[in-house]
Amino acid sequence: MSGVVVQRIQRAPEAVVRALGELGVATVHEAQGRKGLLSSRLRPIYSGARIGASAVTISAPPGDNWMVHVAIEQLQAGDILVLAPTSPSDDGYFGDLLATSAMARGCLGLVIDAGVRDVRDLTQMGFPVWSKTISAQGTVKATLGSVNVPIVCAGAFIDPGDVIVADDDGVCVVARAEAEEVLAKAQARDAAEAEKRARLAAGELGLDIYRMRERLRDMGLRYV
Amino acid sequence: MSGVVVQRIQRAPEAVVRALGELGVATVHEAQGRKGLLSSRLRPIYSGARIGASAVTISAPPGDNWMVHVAIEQLQAGDILVLAPTSPSDDGYFGDLLATSAMARGCLGLVIDAGVRDVRDLTQMGFPVWSKTISAQGTVKATLGSVNVPIVCAGAFIDPGDVIVADDDGVCVVARAEAEEVLAKAQARDAAEAEKRARLAAGELGLDIYRMRERLRDMGLRYV
Amino acid sequence: MSGVVVQRIQRAPEAVVRALGELGVATVHEAQGRKGLLSSRLRPIYSGARIGASAVTISAPPGDNWMVHVAIEQLQAGDILVLAPTSPSDDGYFGDLLATSAMARGCLGLVIDAGVRDVRDLTQMGFPVWSKTISAQGTVKATLGSVNVPIVCAGAFIDPGDVIVADDDGVCVVARAEAEEVLAKAQARDAAEAEKRARLAAGELGLDIYRMRERLRDMGLRYV
Amino acid sequence: MSGVVVQRIQRAPEAVVRALGELGVATVHEAQGRKGLLSSRLRPIYSGARIGASAVTISAPPGDNWMVHVAIEQLQAGDILVLAPTSPSDDGYFGDLLATSAMARGCLGLVIDAGVRDVRDLTQMGFPVWSKTISAQGTVKATLGSVNVPIVCAGAFIDPGDVIVADDDGVCVVARAEAEEVLAKAQARDAAEAEKRARLAAGELGLDIYRMRERLRDMGLRYV
Amino acid sequence: MSGVVVQRIQRAPEAVVRALGELGVATVHEAQGRKGLLSSRLRPIYSGARIGASAVTISAPPGDNWMVHVAIEQLQAGDILVLAPTSPSDDGYFGDLLATSAMARGCLGLVIDAGVRDVRDLTQMGFPVWSKTISAQGTVKATLGSVNVPIVCAGAFIDPGDVIVADDDGVCVVARAEAEEVLAKAQARDAAEAEKRARLAAGELGLDIYRMRERLRDMGLRYV
Amino acid sequence: MSGVVVQRIQRAPEAVVRALGELGVATVHEAQGRKGLLSSRLRPIYSGARIGASAVTISAPPGDNWMVHVAIEQLQAGDILVLAPTSPSDDGYFGDLLATSAMARGCLGLVIDAGVRDVRDLTQMGFPVWSKTISAQGTVKATLGSVNVPIVCAGAFIDPGDVIVADDDGVCVVARAEAEEVLAKAQARDAAEAEKRARLAAGELGLDIYRMRERLRDMGLRYV
Repeated sequence: MSGVVVQRIQRAPEAVVRALGELGVATVHEAQGRKGLLSSRLRPIYSGARIGASAVTISAPPGDNWMVHVAIEQLQAGDILVLAPTSPSDDGYFGDLLATSAMARGCLGLVIDAGVRDVRDLTQMGFPVWSKTISAQGTVKATLGSVNVPIVCAGAFIDPGDVIVADDDGVCVVARAEAEEVLAKAQARDAAEAEKRARLAAGELGLDIYRMRERLRDMGLRYV
Repeated sequence: MSGVVVQRIQRAPEAVVRALGELGVATVHEAQGRKGLLSSRLRPIYSGARIGASAVTISAPPGDNWMVHVAIEQLQAGDILVLAPTSPSDDGYFGDLLATSAMARGCLGLVIDAGVRDVRDLTQMGFPVWSKTISAQGTVKATLGSVNVPIVCAGAFIDPGDVIVADDDGVCVVARAEAEEVLAKAQARDAAEAEKRARLAAGELGLDIYRMRERLRDMGLRYV
Repeated sequence: MSGVVVQRIQRAPEAVVRALGELGVATVHEAQGRKGLLSSRLRPIYSGARIGASAVTISAPPGDNWMVHVAIEQLQAGDILVLAPTSPSDDGYFGDLLATSAMARGCLGLVIDAGVRDVRDLTQMGFPVWSKTISAQGTVKATLGSVNVPIVCAGAFIDPGDVIVADDDGVCVVARAEAEEVLAKAQARDAAEAEKRARLAAGELGLDIYRMRERLRDMGLRYV
Repeated sequence: MSGVVVQRIQRAPEAVVRALGELGVATVHEAQGRKGLLSSRLRPIYSGARIGASAVTISAPPGDNWMVHVAIEQLQAGDILVLAPTSPSDDGYFGDLLATSAMARGCLGLVIDAGVRDVRDLTQMGFPVWSKTISAQGTVKATLGSVNVPIVCAGAFIDPGDVIVADDDGVCVVARAEAEEVLAKAQARDAAEAEKRARLAAGELGLDIYRMRERLRDMGLRYV
Repeated sequence: MSGVVVQRIQRAPEAVVRALGELGVATVHEAQGRKGLLSSRLRPIYSGARIGASAVTISAPPGDNWMVHVAIEQLQAGDILVLAPTSPSDDGYFGDLLATSAMARGCLGLVIDAGVRDVRDLTQMGFPVWSKTISAQGTVKATLGSVNVPIVCAGAFIDPGDVIVADDDGVCVVARAEAEEVLAKAQARDAAEAEKRARLAAGELGLDIYRMRERLRDMGLRYV
Repeated sequence: MSGVVVQRIQRAPEAVVRALGELGVATVHEAQGRKGLLSSRLRPIYSGARIGASAVTISAPPGDNWMVHVAIEQLQAGDILVLAPTSPSDDGYFGDLLATSAMARGCLGLVIDAGVRDVRDLTQMGFPVWSKTISAQGTVKATLGSVNVPIVCAGAFIDPGDVIVADDDGVCVVARAEAEEVLAKAQARDAAEAEKRARLAAGELGLDIYRMRERLRDMGLRYV
C-alpha cells in the first residue's frame, strides 16, 4: 500500500475553496452536518490564521519525513499539506526549510497529526501549521510512505483534493464533491447568524428567538 | 436531580467580587488556605484577562448545550457562567452567538470543563473563556440539565453565587460566605509580598528573609 | 541521596553558551546527533524567548519548592534553574517572587517538569519559563531535595553546569564538555542551511538538492 | 482548613450499605439519577471485588500519606478509606502495611485518586483498591491534611459517612441521607432488568420492548 | 448524514472471517501491509478472547446509545458491533442487557471507541469488548445516528461488512474485498514464522537468520 | 552517538541480583533512598511476575526494532532487555519470535518505554514484559541505534549492567556499584516490616508504633 505517489488529483474550484476558508471551521462544520472535524488535539502554532485549501495528502512512517519532500513536488498554488503518520508520533517532521520550499510552490500551510519545529520561523514567515505537538526532534529519511492516497488524519477520512478549512477553532475537511453544496449551506447559515447576532446583542434571549420555552416545559424543566 | 432552574441566588457584594478578581488567582488561592482551585486543565483562550465574578452554574449533559440558553436568562451584570458536563466532553458548547447574548446581560466570561469554539471572535469581543479544550464540534439541545445547582467543576465544588477568580494562572472559587474574609487575607498577603519583592529585587535571599537556614541545617542539608 | 547542595560547579565558556542559545534548539539538537532533547511536554509560558544558559539543577520532592530557595543562592549570572520533581507533580513551584530573586542574581530563566504560576507577571518581567503546566497550586517547604546534582528532567539526563538551550521549539541540553564541539557543528549546519534555504526559496526541490530521486526509485517508490 | 480530624460521623444502616454494594455501581448510579459517579480514571487493582461501605474521607497533601495513619484510627467495621490529594499525585500512598492495619479495624477497602503500591500483596490479602495509578513511589509524612471532612474525589463530592459502592465498573457515591431511597429504587430497577433480560435473551428486540420504533421514525430515521 | 440505517450489507465468507480471527491481529496486520490497525487505546475488558467477525457499524452521538438498539436488529450470526461516537466520549454505551440481546442474535462482540459497563457480567457471559474505557456512566436516547454507514473508529476507516480481527493485541480491520487475499498472505506468514520460531528457539540468532550483519556493518554499526 | 554496540559490560553478582528481585520494587526503591523508579506508565503485561536481572540496554529509533536483534546477541543468562526509544513511540517493537530468541539465551524479560505485541503468546511463554502500551503495530529495520550505552528509560537513568527489579508495582533500577549495599538495606527493611506487620495485624496503630501523636499535635492537628 505504501510507496505510491498519485500525481494527478482533482481539486474543488479555487473560489469555492477560498470562500469556505473565509467562513471558518465552526460554520462549515455545522453546514455539512457536523462531519469531517479533525480531532481537537490539532492546534495552530499561532493565532489568527484562517484558510481554505486543497489537500495534498501524505501517509508517512513514524519519525520519517522523506515523503514530505516527495509531496512538495506535487503541490499547486492553493494547496495544503496534510500528513498522517502510520502510527502515533510526536516528532518534528517539518521546519523552516520545508516551509520555504512549500511556500515557493504556493502552499498555504500544513496539517499534521504529529510534531512540527522551527515554529518561531514559521510564524515569522506566516506559514500556518495545525499540529499535535511542537517538537525539535528530527526525523529520518529511510522508509517509504505514500503521497495523495486516502488517509485518516486525526480521526477524519481525507481524500487528496478534499477541501481543508482551518482556523483557531481547529481543522475540518469537506469532501471535494460536496464543496459547492456545503459552501451554499454555510453561506446561508452565516447570513442567518448575522440576523440572530443582532437580536441577541439587543438583549433578546435565545429561549425566545429559538422558541425553546414550551419544549423545555414539556420535558419537565422546573423553575424554583 | 436534573431539570431544575434556581432563579434566585445570593451573590457576594460587587466590590468584594471585583477586588478579589484584581488580586488574582495565586494570591486568592493562597489566602484562603489553598482550597478551591479548579484543575489546571482549564486554560484561558487568550492571555491577559483577570476577573472576579459571581457564578451562575450549569450542570449539562455531555454534548448538549441547551441549558446554556436557560442559564443566560438568569444572568446579572457581574456574573460568570460556570459549566460542568455530567460526564467528560470535549465538545464546543459555546460560541460567539451565546457570548453575544451573555454579554448583552452583563456576563463577564465563561468557565467550562469542556470545549468552546469561535475563539477568534470571542477574543475580538473581549469575552474571556477558561476551557478544557477548543473544539468546533457542535452540541445538541435534546436533554435537560440544571441551572444554579451545586456542581463539581474541574475537581472543585461550586455553589451558585460563589465568587470565581480567573486569570492566566487558572481558576479559583471562593465560597460566597467567605468572600470578605478571604479578601482581607488576600489584601494582607498582597501587601506583605510587595515588601518582600523589593527586598528580593535588591538581592536579599529568601533563605535569609524567611530565616530558613537553621531549619534546613537541622533537617540535614549538607553543603559540599 | 537527597539533602545535598553542591556549591562549586563548572560551566562552559560564556560566549559558547550564548552562541548556542542564538542558534536555537532545533539546530543544536541536530548538530549534536539528536540527543539531549527534553520531552515536548515542556512548553514556554510566552512565545519568542530564545536563550542559552548554564544549568543549576534542582531535585525536589513533589509539591515542595524549598530547594528553589536554596538553589537561588547558587546562581551566577547566565545560569538557568532546571527543576525535576522526584515524582510527577503539576504544582506551581515558582512565581513572581522567586523570579524577582533569581533575576537579581542574573538568572536567565527556568526549566521545570512541573507547574509554574504568576505567569502574567513573569511575562511582564521577561523571565522565560519552560514548564509542564501552569498552575496556581502552591507548594510546601517541608522536605529536603538536592541542588546541583545530576538529574533526569523531562526524560533527559542533565549534569549541573550543562548548557541549556531553549526556545519556542522546546528545551535541549548540551553536555558541558561537548559544548564547543557542538557549537562548531551547529554553526556549520546553520551556514549550510542558509544556502539551502535560498535555493529552496528559488523553487528548487529538496528531491534534487539532496539527490533523493534515485534512492527513492531504488526503494520502489512508484509514481502513478 | 486542613489539620482537622472529625471523630464522630454518621453512617447509613449497615444492611442498606451492604445491599447497595451487592447491586453494583451501574445499577445504583442509574437508580439515583446518574449522579455521584467518580471519574473512570479510578480502576480496581484486581477484578471481581464488589463492595458497599461507609466513607472515612482523607484530604491529603500531594505525596504525603501522614493522614492515612490518622484516618485508620477513625475506622469502624464496614468503612472504606477515600483519599483525595489536594493537588494531582501519582505517588503510592498506601501499601500492605497500611492495609494490614486497616483490615485489623474492619476496613473493606480504599478509594484513592492517586497511586497505590504492594498490589500483589493487597491482591493476596483480598484488600480491594480503586486507584488512579499503581506506583512504588513512596510518600513523606511532613504536612497535615484532614480526616472526615467533605472532599471532592475524582470529580465527585463526598461527605464522610456517605455510602461508597465500588466494583469492576468503577466507584459511585450515594449521599448518606438518600441511601435508603436509592436502595429502594435500585432494587426496583434490578427486578425490572431481570424481566427484560429474559425477554432479550429470548430474542425480543429492545426496539419493541421499549417501543422505540415510532419515535425513531418521527425523528426521521430512514431505513435504506 | 445521520439518521440512516443500511439494512443490506455484504460480508466476507464465514470461513475466511473465522480463519482471520484465528491468525490474530499481529499476523493479519502484517500480512495486509500494516494498515487497518485501530488505535491502541482500545483494550479488551478481559484477556484471552480472539475473534474474527463482520462489522455492523454504528455512528452515534456522544453519550447517546439509541442507535445500538437499532443496530442489534441488523445483526447476523458472526457479526460484531463497531461503534464510533461523533465526538469523544467516555460514557458507558453498552452493558449486560444489550449484550444479552446481541448474543441472542449471534453477535460475537463489540468494538467501541468509548466506554462500556457491567464488565463483570460481560466477562461471565463471555461477551468480549474492546473499548477505550470502562465507565458506569449511562447514556441517553435522544438523538439519531446511523447504522451500517462507513465510519472512522479509533483512527481506522471501517466499511460495514469489513472483517474485524481482535485479540489481546488490539483490533484490526480488513477490507471485505481484500479478506481472502489477506488470509492467504497471513497463512503464509504464519507458516514461515513457525519455522523461524524453531530455529530461534534452538539458539540461532535473528542476525544470522535474516542476514542482517552485512547491512548493519555497511550502515556503520560499530562493535566496541 | 548512535551505531555503537558495547560488547563487554559488567554485571552485579548473580545472587545479589536475584535477591533484589525477590524483595520487590517497593522495598528496593525505599531501601535505596527513593531513587531509580521508572515512570508508572510502564505496566506488566500480566500479573505476578517478580524479577531481578541485569540490564542490556537498547537505544532505538522510534518505530525501528533493528537494534533488538543486535542486542539479543549480547545477552547472558540472567539479563533483561531495556529499551528506550529516542523519541516517544507506541509501536510494538517486540513479539513472540524475539521473545523465543531472547529466552533461548537466558533472558528474563523486557522493559520497554514503547509498545509490545503477541501478549497472549508472551504470557503463555512466561516471558514478562513491562511496557508503555500494547500494540500490534510493527516496526521497520532501517536506522541504527545503540546497544549497551547509558540510556534514560521512562524517566530513569540506566547504565548497562545495572540491576533491574520489576514486579506488579512497576520497575526500579539499582546502580550496579550500589547493588550489594542496597540489598543489605532492603533486607533490613524487609525484616523490620515483618515485625511491624504483625503488630499492625494485632490492632496496634501506626500512630503509636511510629510515635506520631506528639508531632501531629505540635503541628496543630485538631480533633473535633
